[in-house]
Amino acid sequence: MIIERVEAIPYRIPMRKPLHFASGAVHHMDNVLVRLTTDTGIVGVADIPPRPYTYGETQAGVVALLEGLFSDALMGADPLDRGRIHAALNRTVGNFATRGGVDVALWDIIGISLDTPVHRLLGGFTDSVRVSHMLGFAPVDEMVEEALRYREVYGITAFKIKVGRYPLSLDIDLCRALREALGTEAELYLDANRGWTAADAVRVLDATDGLGLTFFEEPNDAKEVLGRRRLVQLSRIPIVADESAPSLGDAAREVQTGGATALSIKTARTGFTESQKVLAYAEALGLEVIMGNQIDTQIGSTATVVFGAAFAHSSRNPAELSNFLDMADDLIAEPIEISDGSVLAPRVPGVGVRIDPEKLARYRVDGKKD
Amino acid sequence: MIIERVEAIPYRIPMRKPLHFASGAVHHMDNVLVRLTTDTGIVGVADIPPRPYTYGETQAGVVALLEGLFSDALMGADPLDRGRIHAALNRTVGNFATRGGVDVALWDIIGISLDTPVHRLLGGFTDSVRVSHMLGFAPVDEMVEEALRYREVYGITAFKIKVGRYPLSLDIDLCRALREALGTEAELYLDANRGWTAADAVRVLDATDGLGLTFFEEPNDAKEVLGRRRLVQLSRIPIVADESAPSLGDAAREVQTGGATALSIKTARTGFTESQKVLAYAEALGLEVIMGNQIDTQIGSTATVVFGAAFAHSSRNPAELSNFLDMADDLIAEPIEISDGSVLAPRVPGVGVRIDPEKLARYRVDGKKD
Repeated sequence: MIIERVEAIPYRIPMRKPLHFASGAVHHMDNVLVRLTTDTGIVGVADIPPRPYTYGETQAGVVALLEGLFSDALMGADPLDRGRIHAALNRTVGNFATRGGVDVALWDIIGISLDTPVHRLLGGFTDSVRVSHMLGFAPVDEMVEEALRYREVYGITAFKIKVGRYPLSLDIDLCRALREALGTEAELYLDANRGWTAADAVRVLDATDGLGLTFFEEPNDAKEVLGRRRLVQLSRIPIVADESAPSLGDAAREVQTGGATALSIKTARTGFTESQKVLAYAEALGLEVIMGNQIDTQIGSTATVVFGAAFAHSSRNPAELSNFLDMADDLIAEPIEISDGSVLAPRVPGVGVRIDPEKLARYRVDGKKD
Repeated sequence: MIIERVEAIPYRIPMRKPLHFASGAVHHMDNVLVRLTTDTGIVGVADIPPRPYTYGETQAGVVALLEGLFSDALMGADPLDRGRIHAALNRTVGNFATRGGVDVALWDIIGISLDTPVHRLLGGFTDSVRVSHMLGFAPVDEMVEEALRYREVYGITAFKIKVGRYPLSLDIDLCRALREALGTEAELYLDANRGWTAADAVRVLDATDGLGLTFFEEPNDAKEVLGRRRLVQLSRIPIVADESAPSLGDAAREVQTGGATALSIKTARTGFTESQKVLAYAEALGLEVIMGNQIDTQIGSTATVVFGAAFAHSSRNPAELSNFLDMADDLIAEPIEISDGSVLAPRVPGVGVRIDPEKLARYRVDGKKD
């Protein structure tokens, strides 16, 4: 079985509700669907979300890479030879989301060809993952209302609060209001997307002490090296590296030098193969991981579910899966269902995503037809 | 597909040539063949070498565990649910070889059921691994002759020299003689099996400086904590943790605290699943790994080949695969072939080992029949 077609399909879907956070906002999903077809007629797909402000990739750049250098490495290769394929892809620096997407699409083909769901091929630990919902910037009462509504409608009891604003009291009051409204049972944790200085982040930790927050993601810019380390040492809750640890090597560097005490793993940037390495590294060191969300579509979120369910260590904490609910639409044919606060891993062979051809035709922006 | 039979078959095969090293000697292989049978008729096998002086396991203990606690965890389980199975097995402390063997047998079933060689399921990097031959204690001229013969007959150009004896000059002279006889092209590295003190190991490093040795495995007892760390700091070549790092957690502890700068990975003790984690941990930190040999039969050595070939990082250095040549016989039906200094990973589905029923009947010591 060899790959004989590599397609990069750029598409745009508006957000029903734009997501606002300390490092930016997302109004549209300008993503790329990667589609690999084998000589045996198997089609593997994955979603690639370019994030120019986080990793430097653009929609056009992703397409160019997939149709150029990456096509050269993929055409004629057997998807099972992924070690060899990755060695070729890894000659290109950066471009995490593009490489991650290719890896997920390769695994999709492998799963389909072996007639087995990928979460079972990867690790076979469990069949579902608990969901954490991300609360983007809005007036306090709206954010509280959203959290209560998501608990009511979807059974979600874990929330990631986007913070990182000034004055600090804005977010401190928000945390208090959410804890008060949700009670002690809800899991609440913070993500400042580098919005604060280390010193201010310590102030927030002090001011929110007693609220039972569980993690604090990217409180400040990791490049503020000494400040970050001082913060890590002072924090009683794990400091999560996310955009400062987009690859295995970056994760190791950040953790080994005292810049983080937990890791966010995103299949959108490290696929399954490298995510498995990051997970093993975290497990070796006893670091907790959170399955993160790259503001993923349902295609991308399904990949997160698949990986999260595969391993004990990746399924321990709730996974960030609900961003897709803010999108106006999706390319997926069968929507993800969140119920009782959890999502089931697909039981069908492969990663388990089917693309709706009509939606693809409607949202693709390359003017081509299937 | 579920496991419906768990068999632990103890057997004894004499060594043609006993292996002598600083921490002991092996005259017989008193191993256990683990055999898992599914309701679909698939049989997965693996070899378990108990090493009482290294890990504390005994042949009878392995059998008891497999027939008792581990049977409870395995019977009725789907081999693909290995994350769940391992969570159950890991409740039992230690017993690395027993757990490693079960994991390999599970992967054997998975590979057979998916009609795919396991090295491709695991990572699909390459199809063969280079071989390193282990030179056990003997008079210098015999060891030199053995190295030359293995190079001539098998094309092997990498040798692990068992050292750790007193007076130090014994092994220093040995290293010089081997380098002189084999020339600069051969890869030579040391394994003292904790035979020296840290101070003596530093003396050996000084005395062998310029001989181009590449690794130094377990120079002293890792429990000699400060001495080991001083040695690691002074050594210009990586200090390899082997028996001091029999699991992921032990490897992390030893490396993070400065006790080692490279890792030996043995499928006989960490199977495939945990070996993959150790490998990822090493890759994250840029540590080299050596695929080691637990004085493995050809069944065990095949597992090492399968894992070694699967990944770029595990196939970089030659793997220790040739110990089986010193055994009088083996249970394997089709012997491993070393040619041009390499061994091919089996192309058949599963791990690729077939058991010879006559040999099993001859060497098993439980008085039972198949």
